[in-house]
Amino acid sequence: MLPGPTNVPERVTRAMYVPMINHRSDDFVELYEPCVEKTKQVFRTEGDAVCLSASGTGAVEASVVNLVKKGDKVIIPVNGEFSGRLAQMIEWAGGQAVRVTTEPGVNATLDQVREAFDNNPDVKAFYCVWNETSTGTMLNYLDRIKDLTSRNDSFYVVDGVSIVGGETLEMDKWGVDVAMTGAQKAFAAPPGISPICVGARAKKYMIDNPPSTMYFNLPRYFKYYEESKHTPFTPSLPLLYAYNEAMDIILEEGLDNRIRRHRTCSAALYSGLSAIGLTPFAREDSRSTVVIALNYLPGLEDRTFRNTLSGKFRVLIAGGFGHLKGKVFRVGCMGEVGRYHVMRTISAISSTLALMGYDTDPQAGLKAAEQRLSDL
Amino acid sequence: MLPGPTNVPERVTRAMYVPMINHRSDDFVELYEPCVEKTKQVFRTEGDAVCLSASGTGAVEASVVNLVKKGDKVIIPVNGEFSGRLAQMIEWAGGQAVRVTTEPGVNATLDQVREAFDNNPDVKAFYCVWNETSTGTMLNYLDRIKDLTSRNDSFYVVDGVSIVGGETLEMDKWGVDVAMTGAQKAFAAPPGISPICVGARAKKYMIDNPPSTMYFNLPRYFKYYEESKHTPFTPSLPLLYAYNEAMDIILEEGLDNRIRRHRTCSAALYSGLSAIGLTPFAREDSRSTVVIALNYLPGLEDRTFRNTLSGKFRVLIAGGFGHLKGKVFRVGCMGEVGRYHVMRTISAISSTLALMGYDTDPQAGLKAAEQRLSDL
Repeated sequence: MLPGPTNVPERVTRAMYVPMINHRSDDFVELYEPCVEKTKQVFRTEGDAVCLSASGTGAVEASVVNLVKKGDKVIIPVNGEFSGRLAQMIEWAGGQAVRVTTEPGVNATLDQVREAFDNNPDVKAFYCVWNETSTGTMLNYLDRIKDLTSRNDSFYVVDGVSIVGGETLEMDKWGVDVAMTGAQKAFAAPPGISPICVGARAKKYMIDNPPSTMYFNLPRYFKYYEESKHTPFTPSLPLLYAYNEAMDIILEEGLDNRIRRHRTCSAALYSGLSAIGLTPFAREDSRSTVVIALNYLPGLEDRTFRNTLSGKFRVLIAGGFGHLKGKVFRVGCMGEVGRYHVMRTISAISSTLALMGYDTDPQAGLKAAEQRLSDL
Repeated sequence: MLPGPTNVPERVTRAMYVPMINHRSDDFVELYEPCVEKTKQVFRTEGDAVCLSASGTGAVEASVVNLVKKGDKVIIPVNGEFSGRLAQMIEWAGGQAVRVTTEPGVNATLDQVREAFDNNPDVKAFYCVWNETSTGTMLNYLDRIKDLTSRNDSFYVVDGVSIVGGETLEMDKWGVDVAMTGAQKAFAAPPGISPICVGARAKKYMIDNPPSTMYFNLPRYFKYYEESKHTPFTPSLPLLYAYNEAMDIILEEGLDNRIRRHRTCSAALYSGLSAIGLTPFAREDSRSTVVIALNYLPGLEDRTFRNTLSGKFRVLIAGGFGHLKGKVFRVGCMGEVGRYHVMRTISAISSTLALMGYDTDPQAGLKAAEQRLSDL
């Protein structure tokens, strides 16, 4: 129940068990072209998709170094570790990050974002971390940013690393120019492949203004794909086999069904864990449907709690990140998560709390969750 | 018989067939620490090792962005695709590349390199591509560069992407500050992990002068490893399992035995393929022991030749790279290659040539190879 890497279905793991192929051959085209096409389906875009052999951070950095030039003004909401990092990358690229800062656990409102656009009519791009994995918050107005970026045709970039495939993204319809994720989150594939999608307008800009970087040089990836459906550098072949299989599973379930399952399971986790006495870290209007961050009860020590939970009940969750270490713990609700995972997690957490001397009502937790799960 | 990705032993492929783990856990430390320690053994260094989740190009770029600053003078021999790319990366980082250019297939001599040092007493670093995979050349004086870099304590960086593990590298003894490779070459692991080793002096410099990059930010990797033996970003976990197993195989065989095997097999390939009428592309004093590039015979068409070879005899070799496309073909002699691979490759190539109407003497090729293989 980690917020990534998530459980990988056996079918996906097994897909890696193949002899090595030549990445400059038709064997590779047969593998990579479907990866690209399925990625575009999931991102709902007619644009280009590149499956980078890197972690999600690599794909996020690619979005920055290919688009942000010296002196460019970039508006970015910041309220946690990952949005802070993204703002840092924008500055490293020579950009001027216009931060819309809110406290951790609380999202910038759309009005605050609009105000930043009002004050910066010369903005070059809007970047946002859709799901702030470090605090369990999620922006819920991605479909309304286009009105702002269309004022001066600024670029719109969505870091969807921990959420694409678990929540609705309509890249083309919402006017998103660039978006990316990591395979080890809601796609339930192993880590190491991070797809990045690029719309036609951003693609043209990148080709006309190529970046001073090699490994994350997207124009180079576009060129190789157009010429031969290859990648410019040797890709992580076993992970592409796994990714391809994971995308099949997503499309077999149906993307909308998958998203409904994620929403239902997180609603059940919020209800159930609240009913046993825990409180979510994020404010209600900012809460994520794929990462649930919860405050530690007074006196509840991070390591002891998580070690008991994993040692006695084999349920793995994550601690806090950065300065929230020891203050919150985080439950992932991504990928393969279903009724069984929700019930078992609530049961294991309440049992662990009971073992550690806390007064909890497991029945209330399980009942509250079950009510929500009736939608599944 | 590709110059990467090379054949992966079944034991290594099987190592990926494990359930997903948490990369912020003791499970990860148990996996990653041995990867790091074995890497240091193979590079023969007491310095730091970082196993990057990226292709070899990623590790090469990491060596540049962490060391080369605006205005830095860098001496680099250039005679092929990969050394050209490296010089480009040095310039993108703001460095001034002092190219020692020779024609493809011919190495810069040590005297030419010395002259560059004589003319540039303010040089900041010497970078070299040890094995130029695009042309089948290999530098053979890496042990004598220290005399030059020690003049003003400039850094010494070896791009060993296609050769480490197949030829002798004495990183500490030879005064190499930074070296890297890709797992899919002589290590016979799948592509996607690229180890980079950094000596104490370069490490200190990198920490004191951190780069403006996230994914390839080596000081960040050093810090995470020192604090928790973790990596800053989610690593390609299945590939680390494979890498760890591949390193075990190397150490079981013994690094020196492995290198001897590579040398013997390439000597046999050069002898055997020459005996059937082919000529190596690289000049004799510059030839690589891990990639054998051969000139196409007049009228021999690249695609037809390689398709016949792979279609009828299931032997996969590579075509030419960049402007050598159609002019040369390349046989890898890396990783698992042994007596069987050498004999079968010579037999398949001479049979393909015969099928295509060329007059060859297969017996002469096999005999010449066998003579060399008696060392094994």
